[in-house]
Amino acid sequence: MSEGSPFAAVKLSGAPQFGVQFHPEVSHTEKGQELLSNFVFRICKAERNWSMQGFLQNSVESLSQLEGKVLCAVSGGVDSSVTAVLLNRAIGERLTSVLIDTGLLRAGEAERVKEFLGQELGVKVAFVDAQERFLGALIGVKDPEEKRRVVGKTFADVFEEFAEKEGPFDHLAQGTLYPDVIESGRSAAPASVIKTHHNVGGLPGGLSMKVVEPLRELYKDEVRELGSLLGLPRVVVQRHPFPGPGLAVRVIGEVTKEKLDVCRKASRVVEEVLEEEGLYSKAWQAFAYVGDDEVTGVLGDERRLGRQVTVKVVESVDAMTADWSRLETRVLEHISNRITNEVSGVVAVAYSISSKPPATIEPQ
Amino acid sequence: MSEGSPFAAVKLSGAPQFGVQFHPEVSHTEKGQELLSNFVFRICKAERNWSMQGFLQNSVESLSQLEGKVLCAVSGGVDSSVTAVLLNRAIGERLTSVLIDTGLLRAGEAERVKEFLGQELGVKVAFVDAQERFLGALIGVKDPEEKRRVVGKTFADVFEEFAEKEGPFDHLAQGTLYPDVIESGRSAAPASVIKTHHNVGGLPGGLSMKVVEPLRELYKDEVRELGSLLGLPRVVVQRHPFPGPGLAVRVIGEVTKEKLDVCRKASRVVEEVLEEEGLYSKAWQAFAYVGDDEVTGVLGDERRLGRQVTVKVVESVDAMTADWSRLETRVLEHISNRITNEVSGVVAVAYSISSKPPATIEPQ
Repeated sequence: MSEGSPFAAVKLSGAPQFGVQFHPEVSHTEKGQELLSNFVFRICKAERNWSMQGFLQNSVESLSQLEGKVLCAVSGGVDSSVTAVLLNRAIGERLTSVLIDTGLLRAGEAERVKEFLGQELGVKVAFVDAQERFLGALIGVKDPEEKRRVVGKTFADVFEEFAEKEGPFDHLAQGTLYPDVIESGRSAAPASVIKTHHNVGGLPGGLSMKVVEPLRELYKDEVRELGSLLGLPRVVVQRHPFPGPGLAVRVIGEVTKEKLDVCRKASRVVEEVLEEEGLYSKAWQAFAYVGDDEVTGVLGDERRLGRQVTVKVVESVDAMTADWSRLETRVLEHISNRITNEVSGVVAVAYSISSKPPATIEPQ
Repeated sequence: MSEGSPFAAVKLSGAPQFGVQFHPEVSHTEKGQELLSNFVFRICKAERNWSMQGFLQNSVESLSQLEGKVLCAVSGGVDSSVTAVLLNRAIGERLTSVLIDTGLLRAGEAERVKEFLGQELGVKVAFVDAQERFLGALIGVKDPEEKRRVVGKTFADVFEEFAEKEGPFDHLAQGTLYPDVIESGRSAAPASVIKTHHNVGGLPGGLSMKVVEPLRELYKDEVRELGSLLGLPRVVVQRHPFPGPGLAVRVIGEVTKEKLDVCRKASRVVEEVLEEEGLYSKAWQAFAYVGDDEVTGVLGDERRLGRQVTVKVVESVDAMTADWSRLETRVLEHISNRITNEVSGVVAVAYSISSKPPATIEPQ
């Protein structure tokens, strides 16, 4: 029994069947892990025979069975990087990795990918500059779901063209994780569609490659563990998650170059300050977002209308729930001052004090 | 000499003339008060012969010389309340106070005015419900300066109509303060127009009454002192400043009933939490504002687009500069949770971490 429900947990009399009327799997639930562990190991008598090393060996073995050539999109994030390195180990020369520069990437991301994937880990990476194409496709698009569809479709088109030119490829590999699968409602368990993740639901059916998702049963912390086993540098393994549709979902309203620029520069400030303070790896995600609302500021003795940037730093175990980070005011002050001093057009900075739920981690 | 300027202070050789290349009068300037005090009392040899009690006596005397009937707009704020009580003492029955309900007032403001001005202090207050008229005039108006002009003009029109019906009145009294006068560029000293305050620059010239501004030489803290001398209740004297154009400048973009409602309810939550925590009088202003940007939230297992509210709590001595309040995270969390739980349509809350400058106190 609980305050909110007459039966918080039930058991079928005479049979080993149990039910709970809450989410034992989310990190907010006290003793949720213990409850699940008791159920699995003490009631179901399951054995602990899963290890990341075993998962790695099994994955490499089963991926090496893939026939033909595999195309893998990398974004600089840990998920796609781990996917590419895993495939590189499994199928070597038959893998082609490609970074599509969508114009929606974080500051300096393309250079970073060239350096650590190409030079340090020996994964061949092709580059496609599709910035103008994405920005063109996004003109006039304001609805968040429509943005995701447009980015997903453009992404798939560019991929397909690259595949036709460089291919043929038989498979398309993606760094989809388990929470994406759940939230897109594609798992066996029923779940409402929270957001259409572009690397899950956004691919059009006409795509002429089969989709391979080697990480689709893993949570983020498990992918990081796998990345470490594969020899990825710590800075990449600890890199914050970045949404599939990129900065398009951190720009509220229509996606313009000017707003992207504000978003990118302000987000870089947030990351830099957290790194300086030794807080980067403590945070799950840390970025700034910007919309169309304009507020009044004062520069010298003159008034000016300008943009308001919202800084968001959250802590999370699995992205299913997330808490806003209780940063020290000194750190917030530093971030705020740097953004208004360094990012042209910004006159006000706010700090997100919403957790998930009721907000989502990404603003759109 | 300072880092930013070769000559921070200058003196004309052979003559008692001094200049400084910074703002000694703003509270951010260290020892600025001491510098001004030294100049006034030690160099100019001025005498301390000004007191609030003296100002009160002089004001009552000079206001009692006003001929004819005086109309005074009250808003519930300390400035207009002090103006009304001062005039009530000076001219008694010849004063008519009126509260225009613009639909842009804080939650419960009209009731509050009836109680403390009417019942406790014996000032007769007439009420005009002009909510629909203001909202109608604001349809389609998005530019902050245009909003101020529309509110100012509608205010003056309603006033004039009231004056014609109840009058004739010879004077219109307003609670304009010295910072408003400076920022509107009407003082003797040159100053850029930062904002058009509706109770200064917004009144059309056709208004058939002479404007009386008994507080135009005072700063806010002085008005509070004067209010205490006049017997205003502590809760009114300590009431935060409220902008002339009301919630119209706390709603970014077009002013709609729905956004006003969000703004009013969220602001009430902010005030209530600060009062509970004993922080209300420490803050200069504390409110929430809302714009048109929509962000994604999650309710139960469903996604929904909703509004983001920005909470702003600032500390200031004179409103010329203002620091964002370093509230405890516990307090921010309480405010955030209450707003998303209690204010329909809001899925995210941010806390303003910008000071003035570069932001202004009001968002528009």
